Amino acid sequence: MSFRQGRLSEASRLVPEEVPVAFSYGGSTHAVMMATPSDLVDFAYGFSLAEEIIRLSEDIVAVESVEAGAGIDVQVTLKDSTADALTARRRKMAGPVGCGLCGIESIEQAARQVAKVPEPLPWLSADHVALAVRMLGDAQKLNRGTRAVHGAGFYRPARGLIALREDVGRHNALDKLVGSIVREGEAARDGAVVVTSRLSVEMVQKTAILGCPVLIAISAPTALAIDTANEAGMTLIGIARGDEFEVFTRPDRFMSGEAAHVA
Amino acid sequence: MSFRQGRLSEASRLVPEEVPVAFSYGGSTHAVMMATPSDLVDFAYGFSLAEEIIRLSEDIVAVESVEAGAGIDVQVTLKDSTADALTARRRKMAGPVGCGLCGIESIEQAARQVAKVPEPLPWLSADHVALAVRMLGDAQKLNRGTRAVHGAGFYRPARGLIALREDVGRHNALDKLVGSIVREGEAARDGAVVVTSRLSVEMVQKTAILGCPVLIAISAPTALAIDTANEAGMTLIGIARGDEFEVFTRPDRFMSGEAAHVA
Repeated sequence: MSFRQGRLSEASRLVPEEVPVAFSYGGSTHAVMMATPSDLVDFAYGFSLAEEIIRLSEDIVAVESVEAGAGIDVQVTLKDSTADALTARRRKMAGPVGCGLCGIESIEQAARQVAKVPEPLPWLSADHVALAVRMLGDAQKLNRGTRAVHGAGFYRPARGLIALREDVGRHNALDKLVGSIVREGEAARDGAVVVTSRLSVEMVQKTAILGCPVLIAISAPTALAIDTANEAGMTLIGIARGDEFEVFTRPDRFMSGEAAHVA
Repeated sequence: MSFRQGRLSEASRLVPEEVPVAFSYGGSTHAVMMATPSDLVDFAYGFSLAEEIIRLSEDIVAVESVEAGAGIDVQVTLKDSTADALTARRRKMAGPVGCGLCGIESIEQAARQVAKVPEPLPWLSADHVALAVRMLGDAQKLNRGTRAVHGAGFYRPARGLIALREDVGRHNALDKLVGSIVREGEAARDGAVVVTSRLSVEMVQKTAILGCPVLIAISAPTALAIDTANEAGMTLIGIARGDEFEVFTRPDRFMSGEAAHVA
Protein backbone atom coordinates (compact mmCIF):
# COMPACT_ATOMS: atom_id res chain seq x y z
CA MET A 1 0.00 0.00 0.00
CA SER A 2 1.18 3.47 -0.76
CA PHE A 3 0.21 6.63 1.08
CA ARG A 4 0.41 9.69 -1.14
CA GLN A 5 -1.48 12.96 -1.29
CA GLY A 6 -3.68 12.03 1.62
CA ARG A 7 -4.77 8.56 0.57
CA LEU A 8 -3.73 4.96 0.84
CA SER A 9 -3.79 3.02 -2.41
CA GLU A 10 -2.57 -0.26 -3.78
CA ALA A 11 1.01 -0.15 -4.93
CA SER A 12 3.73 -2.57 -5.83
CA ARG A 13 7.45 -2.18 -5.41
CA LEU A 14 10.53 -4.19 -6.20
CA VAL A 15 12.34 -5.25 -3.06
CA PRO A 16 15.80 -6.79 -2.91
CA GLU A 17 16.38 -10.34 -1.77
CA GLU A 18 18.22 -10.90 1.50
CA VAL A 19 19.29 -14.39 2.53
CA PRO A 20 21.68 -15.91 5.05
CA VAL A 21 24.97 -16.61 3.25
CA ALA A 22 27.46 -18.82 5.08
CA PHE A 23 31.13 -19.12 4.18
CA SER A 24 32.59 -22.53 4.93
CA TYR A 25 36.24 -23.51 4.70
CA GLY A 26 37.15 -27.17 4.91
CA GLY A 27 33.58 -28.01 5.86
CA SER A 28 33.54 -25.65 8.84
CA THR A 29 31.39 -22.52 8.80
CA HIS A 30 33.40 -19.35 9.37
CA ALA A 31 30.63 -16.77 9.29
CA VAL A 32 27.03 -16.21 8.30
CA MET A 33 25.92 -12.94 6.81
CA MET A 34 22.64 -11.52 5.54
CA ALA A 35 23.37 -10.69 1.91
CA THR A 36 21.97 -10.26 -1.56
CA PRO A 37 22.47 -13.66 -3.22
CA SER A 38 24.40 -12.52 -6.28
CA ASP A 39 28.09 -12.60 -7.29
CA LEU A 40 28.80 -15.13 -4.57
CA VAL A 41 32.14 -16.23 -6.04
CA ASP A 42 33.36 -12.62 -6.01
CA PHE A 43 31.98 -12.35 -2.48
CA ALA A 44 33.95 -15.43 -1.40
CA TYR A 45 37.22 -13.99 -2.71
CA GLY A 46 36.63 -10.54 -1.23
CA PHE A 47 35.46 -11.88 2.13
CA SER A 48 38.43 -14.26 2.37
CA LEU A 49 40.83 -11.39 1.65
CA ALA A 50 39.15 -9.06 4.14
CA GLU A 51 39.26 -11.76 6.82
CA GLU A 52 42.91 -12.40 5.98
CA ILE A 53 42.12 -16.05 5.33
CA ILE A 54 43.82 -15.67 1.94
CA ARG A 55 46.45 -13.22 0.67
CA LEU A 56 46.22 -13.90 -3.05
CA SER A 57 43.42 -15.09 -5.29
CA GLU A 58 45.55 -18.18 -5.99
CA ASP A 59 45.01 -19.29 -2.38
CA ILE A 60 41.49 -20.34 -3.37
CA VAL A 61 41.16 -23.56 -5.37
CA ALA A 62 37.39 -23.71 -5.78
CA VAL A 63 34.16 -22.02 -4.68
CA GLU A 64 30.84 -23.82 -4.73
CA SER A 65 27.48 -22.40 -3.65
CA VAL A 66 25.07 -24.92 -2.16
CA GLU A 67 21.48 -24.28 -1.10
CA ALA A 68 21.20 -24.87 2.61
CA GLY A 69 17.77 -24.53 4.15
CA ALA A 70 16.69 -20.91 3.97
CA GLY A 71 20.12 -19.77 2.84
CA ILE A 72 23.23 -20.53 0.83
CA ASP A 73 26.39 -22.23 2.00
CA VAL A 74 29.37 -20.92 0.02
CA GLN A 75 31.95 -23.68 0.31
CA VAL A 76 35.47 -22.44 -0.28
CA THR A 77 38.30 -24.89 -0.98
CA LEU A 78 41.69 -23.44 -0.08
CA LYS A 79 45.04 -24.63 -1.29
CA ASP A 80 46.75 -26.88 1.25
CA SER A 81 49.16 -24.40 2.86
CA THR A 82 46.39 -21.78 3.21
CA ALA A 83 44.00 -24.33 4.70
CA ASP A 84 46.67 -25.40 7.21
CA ALA A 85 47.23 -21.79 8.26
CA LEU A 86 43.49 -21.31 8.83
CA THR A 87 43.30 -24.49 10.91
CA ALA A 88 46.18 -23.28 13.07
CA ARG A 89 44.48 -19.90 13.51
CA ARG A 90 41.19 -21.50 14.49
CA ARG A 91 42.90 -23.59 17.18
CA LYS A 92 44.17 -20.37 18.74
CA MET A 93 40.67 -18.94 18.99
CA ALA A 94 38.78 -19.85 22.12
CA GLY A 95 35.04 -20.18 22.08
CA PRO A 96 32.38 -18.36 20.13
CA VAL A 97 33.62 -15.04 18.89
CA GLY A 98 33.37 -12.39 16.30
CA CYS A 99 30.66 -10.11 15.11
CA GLY A 100 30.46 -7.24 12.70
CA LEU A 101 34.14 -7.72 12.18
CA CYS A 102 33.76 -11.37 11.27
CA GLY A 103 35.83 -13.91 13.11
CA ILE A 104 38.07 -11.34 14.73
CA GLU A 105 38.38 -12.25 18.35
CA SER A 106 39.74 -9.15 20.00
CA ILE A 107 39.41 -5.45 20.12
CA GLU A 108 43.01 -5.09 19.06
CA GLN A 109 42.35 -7.03 15.92
CA ALA A 110 39.26 -4.95 15.23
CA ALA A 111 41.41 -1.82 15.20
CA ARG A 112 44.11 -3.60 13.23
CA GLN A 113 46.93 -1.84 11.47
CA VAL A 114 46.57 -1.48 7.74
CA ALA A 115 49.32 -1.68 5.18
CA LYS A 116 50.40 1.42 3.26
CA VAL A 117 48.65 1.69 -0.09
CA PRO A 118 50.83 2.07 -3.18
CA GLU A 119 51.49 5.53 -4.62
CA PRO A 120 49.43 5.98 -7.81
CA LEU A 121 50.38 7.81 -10.98
CA PRO A 122 48.95 11.34 -10.76
CA TRP A 123 45.41 11.38 -12.14
CA LEU A 124 43.08 12.58 -9.39
CA SER A 125 40.98 15.62 -10.21
CA ALA A 126 37.60 17.03 -9.25
CA ASP A 127 36.28 16.07 -12.67
CA HIS A 128 37.16 12.45 -12.09
CA VAL A 129 35.54 12.40 -8.66
CA ALA A 130 32.30 13.82 -10.02
CA LEU A 131 32.37 11.42 -12.97
CA ALA A 132 33.06 8.38 -10.79
CA VAL A 133 30.12 9.21 -8.52
CA ARG A 134 27.81 9.84 -11.48
CA MET A 135 28.81 6.59 -13.17
CA LEU A 136 28.25 4.70 -9.93
CA GLY A 137 24.71 6.03 -9.64
CA ASP A 138 23.97 5.28 -13.30
CA ALA A 139 25.26 1.71 -12.99
CA GLN A 140 23.26 0.70 -9.91
CA LYS A 141 20.53 -1.30 -11.59
CA LEU A 142 19.32 -3.16 -8.53
CA ASN A 143 19.15 0.00 -6.46
CA ARG A 144 17.21 1.87 -9.12
CA GLY A 145 14.36 -0.60 -8.72
CA THR A 146 14.55 -1.05 -5.00
CA ARG A 147 16.23 1.99 -3.41
CA ALA A 148 17.39 -0.45 -0.74
CA VAL A 149 20.85 -1.66 -1.75
CA HIS A 150 24.36 -0.32 -1.56
CA GLY A 151 26.80 -0.20 -4.45
CA ALA A 152 30.58 -0.41 -4.67
CA GLY A 153 32.37 0.34 -7.93
CA PHE A 154 35.89 0.54 -9.27
CA TYR A 155 36.79 3.58 -11.37
CA ARG A 156 39.75 3.97 -13.68
CA PRO A 157 40.53 7.42 -15.06
CA ALA A 158 41.00 6.14 -18.61
CA ARG A 159 38.17 3.61 -18.68
CA GLY A 160 35.48 4.80 -16.31
CA LEU A 161 33.59 2.51 -13.95
CA ILE A 162 34.92 -0.94 -14.84
CA ALA A 163 33.13 -2.94 -12.14
CA LEU A 164 30.10 -2.58 -9.90
CA ARG A 165 28.65 -4.85 -7.25
CA GLU A 166 25.47 -4.37 -5.24
CA ASP A 167 24.23 -5.79 -1.94
CA VAL A 168 21.83 -5.01 0.88
CA GLY A 169 24.95 -4.69 3.05
CA ARG A 170 27.62 -2.10 2.29
CA HIS A 171 30.45 -4.32 3.56
CA ASN A 172 29.19 -7.15 1.39
CA ALA A 173 29.02 -4.91 -1.68
CA LEU A 174 32.65 -3.89 -1.15
CA ASP A 175 33.76 -7.48 -0.50
CA LYS A 176 32.12 -8.50 -3.79
CA LEU A 177 33.84 -5.65 -5.63
CA VAL A 178 37.25 -6.49 -4.16
CA GLY A 179 36.74 -10.12 -5.14
CA SER A 180 35.84 -9.19 -8.71
CA ILE A 181 38.89 -6.91 -9.11
CA VAL A 182 41.25 -9.53 -7.72
CA ARG A 183 39.75 -12.32 -9.84
CA GLU A 184 40.05 -10.21 -12.98
CA GLY A 185 43.68 -9.50 -12.13
CA GLU A 186 43.07 -5.76 -12.33
CA ALA A 187 45.76 -3.63 -10.69
CA ALA A 188 44.07 -1.49 -8.07
CA ARG A 189 46.86 1.07 -7.81
CA ASP A 190 45.70 3.49 -10.49
CA GLY A 191 42.02 3.73 -9.77
CA ALA A 192 39.50 4.49 -7.08
CA VAL A 193 36.93 2.58 -5.11
CA VAL A 194 33.57 4.42 -5.15
CA VAL A 195 30.84 3.53 -2.69
CA THR A 196 27.32 4.73 -1.94
CA SER A 197 27.61 4.32 1.78
CA ARG A 198 29.09 5.92 4.83
CA LEU A 199 32.78 5.36 5.50
CA SER A 200 33.29 3.22 8.55
CA VAL A 201 36.74 1.91 9.33
CA GLU A 202 36.05 -1.44 7.73
CA MET A 203 35.45 0.22 4.36
CA VAL A 204 38.94 1.76 4.60
CA GLN A 205 40.49 -1.54 5.73
CA LYS A 206 38.95 -3.45 2.80
CA THR A 207 40.11 -0.80 0.31
CA ALA A 208 43.63 -0.91 1.79
CA ILE A 209 43.71 -4.70 1.50
CA LEU A 210 42.82 -4.31 -2.18
CA GLY A 211 45.81 -1.95 -2.48
CA CYS A 212 43.72 0.94 -3.80
CA PRO A 213 44.95 4.43 -2.80
CA VAL A 214 41.69 6.37 -3.36
CA LEU A 215 38.30 5.80 -1.71
CA ILE A 216 35.32 7.96 -2.66
CA ALA A 217 31.99 7.80 -0.80
CA ILE A 218 28.69 9.56 -1.19
CA SER A 219 28.35 9.81 2.56
CA ALA A 220 30.56 10.81 5.49
CA PRO A 221 33.41 9.10 7.35
CA THR A 222 33.90 8.25 10.99
CA ALA A 223 36.89 9.54 12.96
CA LEU A 224 38.48 6.08 12.99
CA ALA A 225 38.02 5.75 9.23
CA ILE A 226 39.95 9.02 8.78
CA ASP A 227 42.72 7.93 11.16
CA THR A 228 43.05 4.61 9.39
CA ALA A 229 43.11 6.21 5.94
CA ASN A 230 45.88 8.54 7.15
CA GLU A 231 47.84 5.57 8.42
CA ALA A 232 47.43 3.78 5.08
CA GLY A 233 48.31 6.89 3.05
CA MET A 234 44.91 6.70 1.36
CA THR A 235 43.05 9.65 -0.14
CA LEU A 236 39.62 9.61 1.51
CA ILE A 237 36.88 11.58 -0.23
CA GLY A 238 33.38 11.80 1.24
CA ILE A 239 30.03 13.56 0.91
CA ALA A 240 30.58 13.44 -2.84
CA ARG A 241 27.42 14.72 -4.49
CA GLY A 242 27.18 16.44 -7.83
CA ASP A 243 30.31 18.52 -8.26
CA GLU A 244 30.99 18.91 -4.54
CA PHE A 245 32.89 16.74 -2.15
CA GLU A 246 35.21 16.82 0.84
CA VAL A 247 38.74 15.46 1.04
CA PHE A 248 39.63 14.09 4.47
CA THR A 249 43.12 12.70 3.91
CA ARG A 250 45.98 13.09 1.42
CA PRO A 251 44.50 15.99 -0.61
CA ASP A 252 47.98 16.43 -2.12
CA ARG A 253 47.07 13.82 -4.72
CA PHE A 254 44.74 16.29 -6.39
CA MET A 255 46.32 17.81 -9.45
CA SER A 256 45.84 21.40 -8.40
CA GLY A 257 45.86 22.90 -11.88
CA GLU A 258 42.96 20.83 -13.05
CA ALA A 259 40.96 21.08 -9.86
CA ALA A 260 41.05 24.85 -10.04
CA HIS A 261 39.18 25.22 -13.32
CA VAL A 262 36.32 22.84 -12.73
CA ALA A 263 33.12 24.86 -12.54
CA MET B 1 39.55 20.14 2.48
CA SER B 2 36.31 20.98 0.77
CA PHE B 3 35.73 21.15 -2.98
CA ARG B 4 32.94 23.57 -3.88
CA GLN B 5 32.23 25.79 -6.84
CA GLY B 6 35.37 24.72 -8.58
CA ARG B 7 37.90 25.15 -5.83
CA LEU B 8 39.46 23.26 -2.98
CA SER B 9 39.54 25.11 0.31
CA GLU B 10 40.23 24.43 3.96
CA ALA B 11 37.21 23.10 5.78
CA SER B 12 36.44 21.43 9.05
CA ARG B 13 33.71 18.95 9.80
CA LEU B 14 32.47 17.07 12.81
CA VAL B 15 32.93 13.34 12.40
CA PRO B 16 31.47 10.67 14.65
CA GLU B 17 33.62 8.45 16.81
CA GLU B 18 33.80 4.76 15.97
CA VAL B 19 35.53 2.33 18.32
CA PRO B 20 35.64 -1.42 18.81
CA VAL B 21 33.12 -2.33 21.52
CA ALA B 22 33.33 -5.84 22.95
CA PHE B 23 30.59 -7.51 24.98
CA SER B 24 31.88 -9.92 27.59
CA TYR B 25 29.82 -12.26 29.73
CA GLY B 26 31.47 -14.02 32.64
CA GLY B 27 34.87 -12.79 31.43
CA SER B 28 34.48 -14.30 27.96
CA THR B 29 34.09 -12.04 24.93
CA HIS B 30 30.94 -12.77 22.97
CA ALA B 31 31.29 -10.27 20.15
CA VAL B 32 33.17 -7.18 19.04
CA MET B 33 31.44 -4.46 17.08
CA MET B 34 32.46 -1.12 15.65
CA ALA B 35 30.17 1.37 17.37
CA THR B 36 29.67 4.90 18.59
CA PRO B 37 30.84 4.84 22.24
CA SER B 38 27.69 6.25 23.84
CA ASP B 39 24.78 4.72 25.75
CA LEU B 40 26.77 1.55 26.31
CA VAL B 41 24.56 0.28 29.13
CA ASP B 42 21.50 0.55 26.89
CA PHE B 43 23.53 -1.13 24.16
CA ALA B 44 24.39 -4.03 26.50
CA TYR B 45 20.73 -4.64 27.35
CA GLY B 46 19.54 -4.38 23.73
CA PHE B 47 22.36 -6.52 22.37
CA SER B 48 21.81 -9.18 25.04
CA LEU B 49 18.10 -9.30 24.18
CA ALA B 50 18.72 -9.43 20.43
CA GLU B 51 21.23 -12.25 20.90
CA GLU B 52 18.72 -14.03 23.14
CA ILE B 53 21.29 -14.14 25.93
CA ILE B 54 18.67 -12.57 28.21
CA ARG B 55 14.87 -12.53 28.06
CA LEU B 56 14.17 -9.84 30.63
CA SER B 57 16.09 -6.83 31.83
CA GLU B 58 16.22 -8.50 35.26
CA ASP B 59 18.55 -11.16 33.80
CA ILE B 60 21.36 -8.57 33.91
CA VAL B 61 22.86 -7.83 37.33
CA ALA B 62 25.48 -5.26 36.33
CA VAL B 63 27.13 -3.63 33.32
CA GLU B 64 30.58 -2.10 33.51
CA SER B 65 32.48 -0.42 30.66
CA VAL B 66 36.25 -0.80 30.81
CA GLU B 67 38.78 0.80 28.48
CA ALA B 68 40.64 -1.94 26.66
CA GLY B 69 43.39 -0.87 24.32
CA ALA B 70 41.87 0.95 21.37
CA GLY B 71 38.36 0.01 22.39
CA ILE B 72 35.92 -0.61 25.20
CA ASP B 73 35.10 -3.89 26.89
CA VAL B 74 31.51 -3.87 28.12
CA GLN B 75 31.44 -6.45 30.89
CA VAL B 76 27.98 -7.80 31.56
CA THR B 77 27.22 -9.73 34.75
CA LEU B 78 24.24 -12.04 34.35
CA LYS B 79 22.17 -13.52 37.12
CA ASP B 80 23.22 -17.09 37.88
CA SER B 81 20.55 -19.02 35.98
CA THR B 82 21.03 -16.85 32.87
CA ALA B 83 24.81 -17.22 33.05
CA ASP B 84 24.42 -21.00 33.32
CA ALA B 85 22.18 -21.08 30.24
CA LEU B 86 24.77 -19.09 28.25
CA THR B 87 27.56 -21.43 29.32
CA ALA B 88 25.51 -24.44 28.20
CA ARG B 89 24.79 -22.74 24.86
CA ARG B 90 28.45 -21.93 24.35
CA ARG B 91 29.44 -25.54 24.91
CA LYS B 92 27.12 -26.55 22.08
CA MET B 93 28.84 -24.17 19.66
CA ALA B 94 31.85 -25.57 17.87
CA GLY B 95 34.72 -23.35 16.87
CA PRO B 96 34.80 -19.75 15.71
CA VAL B 97 31.44 -18.68 14.42
CA GLY B 98 29.08 -15.85 13.86
CA CYS B 99 29.20 -12.67 11.87
CA GLY B 100 26.75 -9.93 11.06
CA LEU B 101 24.23 -11.94 13.01
CA CYS B 102 26.42 -12.08 16.11
CA GLY B 103 27.14 -15.45 17.60
CA ILE B 104 24.58 -17.27 15.55
CA GLU B 105 26.18 -20.35 14.17
CA SER B 106 23.92 -21.54 11.46
CA ILE B 107 21.91 -20.35 8.53
CA GLU B 108 18.75 -21.64 10.14
CA GLN B 109 19.32 -19.50 13.18
CA ALA B 110 20.00 -16.50 10.98
CA ALA B 111 16.55 -16.88 9.45
CA ARG B 112 15.04 -17.58 12.84
CA GLN B 113 11.34 -17.49 13.55
CA VAL B 114 10.07 -14.44 15.32
CA ALA B 115 7.33 -14.29 17.94
CA LYS B 116 4.02 -12.62 17.14
CA VAL B 117 3.93 -9.02 18.24
CA PRO B 118 1.07 -7.95 20.55
CA GLU B 119 -2.00 -6.28 19.08
CA PRO B 120 -1.92 -2.55 19.86
CA LEU B 121 -4.81 -0.28 20.66
CA PRO B 122 -5.90 1.48 17.45
CA TRP B 123 -3.89 4.67 16.97
CA LEU B 124 -2.00 4.42 13.68
CA SER B 125 -2.65 7.17 11.18
CA ALA B 126 -0.79 8.93 8.40
CA ASP B 127 -0.47 11.99 10.65
CA HIS B 128 1.32 9.97 13.28
CA VAL B 129 3.70 8.40 10.74
CA ALA B 130 4.67 11.80 9.36
CA LEU B 131 5.06 13.25 12.86
CA ALA B 132 7.19 10.34 14.07
CA VAL B 133 9.56 10.69 11.12
CA ARG B 134 9.79 14.46 11.55
CA MET B 135 10.46 14.17 15.27
CA LEU B 136 13.15 11.58 14.61
CA GLY B 137 14.95 13.90 12.21
CA ASP B 138 14.68 16.84 14.62
CA ALA B 139 16.06 14.80 17.53
CA GLN B 140 19.16 13.46 15.78
CA LYS B 141 21.73 15.79 17.28
CA LEU B 142 24.79 13.72 16.46
CA ASN B 143 23.70 13.22 12.88
CA ARG B 144 23.03 16.91 12.36
CA GLY B 145 26.68 17.64 12.93
CA THR B 146 28.12 14.62 11.19
CA ARG B 147 25.62 13.31 8.63
CA ALA B 148 27.22 9.93 9.30
CA VAL B 149 25.16 8.20 11.97
CA HIS B 150 21.90 6.32 12.11
CA GLY B 151 19.11 6.99 14.54
CA ALA B 152 16.45 4.81 16.14
CA GLY B 153 13.60 6.31 18.10
CA PHE B 154 10.49 5.22 19.97
CA TYR B 155 7.28 7.09 19.26
CA ARG B 156 4.12 7.12 21.37
CA PRO B 157 0.98 8.66 19.87
CA ALA B 158 0.20 10.61 23.05
CA ARG B 159 3.74 11.65 23.95
CA GLY B 160 5.74 11.89 20.75
CA LEU B 161 9.29 10.63 20.43
CA ILE B 162 10.15 9.48 23.94
CA ALA B 163 13.59 8.02 23.21
CA LEU B 164 16.31 8.32 20.59
CA ARG B 165 19.63 6.59 20.22
CA GLU B 166 22.32 7.18 17.58
CA ASP B 167 25.20 5.09 16.30
CA VAL B 168 27.42 4.70 13.26
CA GLY B 169 25.75 1.30 12.85
CA ARG B 170 22.02 0.98 12.32
CA HIS B 171 21.81 -2.32 14.21
CA ASN B 172 23.68 -0.78 17.12
CA ALA B 173 21.35 2.24 17.18
CA LEU B 174 18.34 -0.08 17.39
CA ASP B 175 19.97 -2.27 20.07
CA LYS B 176 20.62 0.85 22.13
CA LEU B 177 17.01 2.00 21.71
CA VAL B 178 15.62 -1.41 22.66
CA GLY B 179 17.85 -1.44 25.73
CA SER B 180 16.68 2.02 26.79
CA ILE B 181 12.99 1.12 26.41
CA VAL B 182 13.39 -2.10 28.38
CA ARG B 183 15.43 -0.45 31.12
CA GLU B 184 12.82 2.32 31.48
CA GLY B 185 10.11 -0.32 31.76
CA GLU B 186 8.19 1.29 28.89
CA ALA B 187 5.54 -0.95 27.32
CA ALA B 188 6.35 -1.25 23.63
CA ARG B 189 2.90 -2.40 22.56
CA ASP B 190 1.31 0.97 21.94
CA GLY B 191 4.03 2.76 20.06
CA ALA B 192 6.29 2.54 17.05
CA VAL B 193 9.98 2.10 16.43
CA VAL B 194 11.21 4.72 13.92
CA VAL B 195 14.56 4.31 12.19
CA THR B 196 16.57 6.25 9.63
CA SER B 197 17.93 3.20 7.87
CA ARG B 198 16.95 0.52 5.45
CA LEU B 199 14.91 -2.38 6.76
CA SER B 200 16.93 -5.56 6.75
CA VAL B 201 15.54 -8.62 8.46
CA GLU B 202 17.51 -7.99 11.63
CA MET B 203 15.77 -4.66 12.16
CA VAL B 204 12.43 -6.52 12.09
CA GLN B 205 13.74 -9.25 14.42
CA LYS B 206 14.97 -6.72 16.97
CA THR B 207 11.66 -4.81 16.88
CA ALA B 208 9.74 -8.08 17.34
CA ILE B 209 11.90 -9.01 20.33
CA LEU B 210 11.00 -5.64 21.86
CA GLY B 211 7.34 -6.57 21.34
CA CYS B 212 6.61 -3.49 19.24
CA PRO B 213 3.94 -3.95 16.53
CA VAL B 214 4.88 -0.99 14.29
CA LEU B 215 8.20 -0.32 12.56
CA ILE B 216 8.67 2.85 10.47
CA ALA B 217 11.77 3.46 8.34
CA ILE B 218 12.92 6.26 6.13
CA SER B 219 14.32 3.79 3.64
CA ALA B 220 13.17 0.57 1.98
CA PRO B 221 12.81 -3.05 3.16
CA THR B 222 14.25 -6.28 1.84
CA ALA B 223 12.04 -9.18 0.80
CA LEU B 224 13.02 -11.17 3.90
CA ALA B 225 12.24 -8.21 6.15
CA ILE B 226 8.72 -8.12 4.68
CA ASP B 227 8.25 -11.88 5.07
CA THR B 228 9.43 -11.73 8.66
CA ALA B 229 7.20 -8.77 9.50
CA ASN B 230 4.24 -10.67 8.06
CA GLU B 231 5.09 -13.67 10.20
CA ALA B 232 5.31 -11.47 13.30
CA GLY B 233 2.09 -9.62 12.49
CA MET B 234 4.03 -6.36 12.43
CA THR B 235 3.03 -3.25 10.48
CA LEU B 236 6.06 -2.39 8.35
CA ILE B 237 6.20 1.14 6.94
CA GLY B 238 9.05 2.24 4.69
CA ILE B 239 10.23 5.06 2.44
CA ALA B 240 8.62 7.44 4.88
CA ARG B 241 9.50 10.97 3.78
CA GLY B 242 7.48 14.07 4.38
CA ASP B 243 3.81 13.07 4.18
CA GLU B 244 4.39 10.05 1.97
CA PHE B 245 5.22 6.48 2.86
CA GLU B 246 4.57 2.89 1.88
CA VAL B 247 2.96 0.20 4.00
CA PHE B 248 4.35 -3.28 3.34
CA THR B 249 2.52 -5.41 5.91
CA ARG B 250 -0.62 -5.20 8.07
CA PRO B 251 -2.05 -1.96 6.59
CA ASP B 252 -5.31 -2.86 8.35
CA ARG B 253 -3.98 -1.14 11.48
CA PHE B 254 -4.42 2.24 9.81
CA MET B 255 -7.53 3.94 11.02
CA SER B 256 -9.03 4.51 7.59
CA GLY B 257 -11.18 7.48 8.54
CA GLU B 258 -8.25 9.53 9.72
CA ALA B 259 -5.86 8.44 6.98
CA ALA B 260 -8.31 9.63 4.36
CA HIS B 261 -8.32 13.27 5.35
CA VAL B 262 -4.64 13.90 5.80
CA ALA B 263 -3.55 16.38 3.17
